[in-house]
Amino acid sequence: MLGYGNEKGEERLRIAIGEMLRLERGLSIDTENICVTRGSQMALYLVACTLIKHGDVVAVENPGYEPVWKAFTHAGATLQPVKVDEQGICAVTLEKLCKRKKIKAIYVTPHHQFPTTVNMKADRRIKLIELSNKYGFAIVEDDYDHDYHFCLRNVLPIASSERAPNVIYISSLTKLIAPAVRIGYVAGPKNFIDSLAAFRRVIDRQGDVVMELAVAELMEEGEIRKHARRAFSVYKERRDLMAKYLDTYLSKHASFVKPDGGLAYWVKFNKTIHTGELASKLLKKGVAINPTERFSFDGKPLSALRLGYAALDVNELENGIKLLSMAL
Amino acid sequence: MLGYGNEKGEERLRIAIGEMLRLERGLSIDTENICVTRGSQMALYLVACTLIKHGDVVAVENPGYEPVWKAFTHAGATLQPVKVDEQGICAVTLEKLCKRKKIKAIYVTPHHQFPTTVNMKADRRIKLIELSNKYGFAIVEDDYDHDYHFCLRNVLPIASSERAPNVIYISSLTKLIAPAVRIGYVAGPKNFIDSLAAFRRVIDRQGDVVMELAVAELMEEGEIRKHARRAFSVYKERRDLMAKYLDTYLSKHASFVKPDGGLAYWVKFNKTIHTGELASKLLKKGVAINPTERFSFDGKPLSALRLGYAALDVNELENGIKLLSMAL
Repeated sequence: MLGYGNEKGEERLRIAIGEMLRLERGLSIDTENICVTRGSQMALYLVACTLIKHGDVVAVENPGYEPVWKAFTHAGATLQPVKVDEQGICAVTLEKLCKRKKIKAIYVTPHHQFPTTVNMKADRRIKLIELSNKYGFAIVEDDYDHDYHFCLRNVLPIASSERAPNVIYISSLTKLIAPAVRIGYVAGPKNFIDSLAAFRRVIDRQGDVVMELAVAELMEEGEIRKHARRAFSVYKERRDLMAKYLDTYLSKHASFVKPDGGLAYWVKFNKTIHTGELASKLLKKGVAINPTERFSFDGKPLSALRLGYAALDVNELENGIKLLSMAL
Repeated sequence: MLGYGNEKGEERLRIAIGEMLRLERGLSIDTENICVTRGSQMALYLVACTLIKHGDVVAVENPGYEPVWKAFTHAGATLQPVKVDEQGICAVTLEKLCKRKKIKAIYVTPHHQFPTTVNMKADRRIKLIELSNKYGFAIVEDDYDHDYHFCLRNVLPIASSERAPNVIYISSLTKLIAPAVRIGYVAGPKNFIDSLAAFRRVIDRQGDVVMELAVAELMEEGEIRKHARRAFSVYKERRDLMAKYLDTYLSKHASFVKPDGGLAYWVKFNKTIHTGELASKLLKKGVAINPTERFSFDGKPLSALRLGYAALDVNELENGIKLLSMAL
C-alpha cells in the first residue's frame, strides 16, 4: 500500500463508486469509466484540461462557482456566462448563445445550483440535453452534494439520462465524509477517462492508496450509506430550523426559498448590499460569512448570501442569523 | 484537522521543512518561502505553470527525467535538450544555447542526475550559476534523493549558494518515507511561492492535513532523521553489494561507475541495445526493469539501464543481475 499506485485510483474504490453510481444515481457505467481524483477541484481541473483546447468556448452558470471559472480559464477556455433563474440555467439564453457561437462545453450544478441552491427543473434538463445533442457540446455536471436532497422524490443526475451521451459527471465524498478526505471522481466515456488519467499522472501522479482503500472498505460494508442516512436527518433538521430563524430575524431585510436540498440557503436582500463589507463587519462579531461578489460573473454585487448551516448547532444558527440581522 | 486546510500546506510542516533545509542543506529560507505539495510531480507541474508563458524556452538535461518534460510542455514551454556527461550538464553547450536563444529556465538534477546518477561537479555548478545570472534564467533544481549521498563530504544544493538568487528548489519525502506518502515541497522567493500556491488551489485545493501534521511531528521529534540514518546504512551496503554483482556478472556486457549516491546504478552496455525489448524478455523471467528510451530526448536508444537497488535484498540483487546477464 505504501508503494506507487494507479493514477486512476485503486480499482477496489472505483468498483465501489461504480456500484453506488449505478444503484443509487442511475448511471450506466463501469469501473473503466471512472477516475478517482483528489476532491472535485482536481476533477474539475482535469476535466477542463482534457476537454478544452485554447480558445474553446465554455458556457457557465451566472451566478456560479468561481473556482471552476479559474480551472477552465487556465485550460485556455473563453467563458460565456448564462443566467440562472428560479428554474435553473436559462435554456432560452443558452440556445441563443449556441446559435451565435460554437460551444465546446457547459458547466452546470443542476442538483442544487451553486450558489443559488436551485434544483434544475425537468423541462430545463430536457432542453439542455436536446441542445447538447443538437449543437454537440459536452455537459460537465458537477453533482457536489448529491446525498442531501430533502424532497420526497430524489432527482437523478443528468448523466443518468439515456438521451445524454455527452455528459462528464463529477462528484466527491467531501460533503459526505469530510473536506480533508480528498476523494472525488470523474465518470465519463472510457477514452476520455484514459486521457484524463494520463494527464493526472503529470500533475499529481496518483491518489492516496491507503485512504482510497479505507474508503472502499467503508463503502463495501455499507458504513458510508449508514453515515449518509444519519447526516441526512441531522441536516434536514438544521435546514428546517434555519428557515424558522430566517423568518424570525431576517424577513424584514431579505427573502429566501427553502432549498430542496444541499447544505445552504440563498438569501436575497431587499436592497443593494456589498457583502464584502458586510463580511468584515460581521467577522468582528464572530460570525464568518462568504462574500458573494466573486460568484457574480461581472463582479457586480448579487446582494445575496449563501448561508451554510451544516456545521452549526441550534445556538450558533440562531445567534449567527440574529447578529446578521443586527448588522443589516 | 478534517476541515479545509491551507493550500501552502500546514504551517507546522512548513516550519519543520524550513528548519531542515536551513540546518542540513544550507538554504537561506523561511517558512513563507515554502509550499508543500503532493510529491515532487505536483511540485514540478506547479513550478512549470507558474514560471512559464506559452513559447518560453526551457533547457532540460539529456538524457533526463521525461515526466518533467511533459509538465513543462503542458505549461506551454518549448524544450531544448542539453547534453549530460560524466561531470553533469555540459556548461559549454548551455552557454552556446543561451547566446542563440532567450532561455526562461533550466531544469537540473545536480545531486544525482536522473537517469545517469552523475553528481554535478563544482566547476559546472559555478558556471551554471554564472550563466543564470548573466542570461537571467531560473534554475529549477530537483533534489529528489538528497539524503542518500555516500561520499565523505556531502554536496549542498545549488539553492544554498549565495550567488544563485534565481533558484527554485524542489524536493520530497518520497525516497525517505514511502512513495504513497505524497509529500513534496517547493522553496523559492516569497512572491513566486504565493503565485504557485494560488494556482495549487485551482488544481488541488489543499494537501492532506492529517498526513502533513503527522510528518511534521515525526520531523520535530527527530524520527525522520533517525530513519534516514538507518536507511542510509542499508542502502550503502546494497550499493556496495550491487557493484560486486555487476562486476561478477555484467562486466563482459557493460560498464558502470559506482554512484556517489542515490538509489540506482547507470549501466551502459557495450553494444546498441533496445531496452524496451530487453524489458519484455526479462519480465518473463520475473525481473522488472525500466526501459530507458523515454529518457532520451530524441527517443534513440541510450543502450543503458538505470538499475535501482533500494528495494532489493541480497538474493534479489544477485538473481536479478544474473538473469539480466543471461538475457544479454
